[in-house]
Amino acid sequence: MNQKDRVEIDRLAEALTAAWNAADGVAFAKMFTEDADFVNIRGDHFVGRDTIAEGHQRIFDSIYRDSRNVFAISKIREATGEVVVALMEAHLHCPQGPMAGDNDAIATAVLWREPSGWRIASFHNTLKQGPPGARPTR
Amino acid sequence: MNQKDRVEIDRLAEALTAAWNAADGVAFAKMFTEDADFVNIRGDHFVGRDTIAEGHQRIFDSIYRDSRNVFAISKIREATGEVVVALMEAHLHCPQGPMAGDNDAIATAVLWREPSGWRIASFHNTLKQGPPGARPTR
Repeated sequence: MNQKDRVEIDRLAEALTAAWNAADGVAFAKMFTEDADFVNIRGDHFVGRDTIAEGHQRIFDSIYRDSRNVFAISKIREATGEVVVALMEAHLHCPQGPMAGDNDAIATAVLWREPSGWRIASFHNTLKQGPPGARPTR
Repeated sequence: MNQKDRVEIDRLAEALTAAWNAADGVAFAKMFTEDADFVNIRGDHFVGRDTIAEGHQRIFDSIYRDSRNVFAISKIREATGEVVVALMEAHLHCPQGPMAGDNDAIATAVLWREPSGWRIASFHNTLKQGPPGARPTR
């Protein structure tokens, strides 16, 4: 992967951050392909940019209202020159509600290049549960 | 994707099933690339086939002892002819311990073809939490 691609992929994470913090579901979903798969922390599976926009707008306006999130790429592997598997970490601060406090998440994202730039074709997100004990591992 | 690839990818899921039910960590990890990324249901990130083998052997011998699991591909998208993004569902029955009962999981797996066949380069697993309410969505 050349430096330009790497910069663009970091910018994609920055765009997710900016969209989240602006509570803008459409801007958030713009970073996904039209037919993207999205699996959230509950194991619910959503398909498509419009669904991702609506779902995020709903949570931005409710449980994640006034929250702040930072997305960053933590690992990149090239599958081919045009397809990348990225691990993305997110640190969320939520001021109120059932997620009040600080939450760390890790996502696996499959990215590929569309005419408009690198986009997320698949995103699978998990809330980090901290030190073992509470729940088993697999 | 041709029929042969699809059959081979279904067989990969069957091999995971067989390895899990034989409590064989090495056989389970054999379906992964040597440098595979694995994110478990707790958001822990493991790297490499050997680590995946050891980690699974440990849970096969403890919290998942005598459990039965069935993996099946629920969706396939081709990124390129050589790289596939698959959604994989797993239905686990665990006879005892903290996970006693039936548990459904959904994983996003990135597969690519190695000389020995299709292998999992990235696996990200989430326990399905059922109907909304208990925990928020994102």
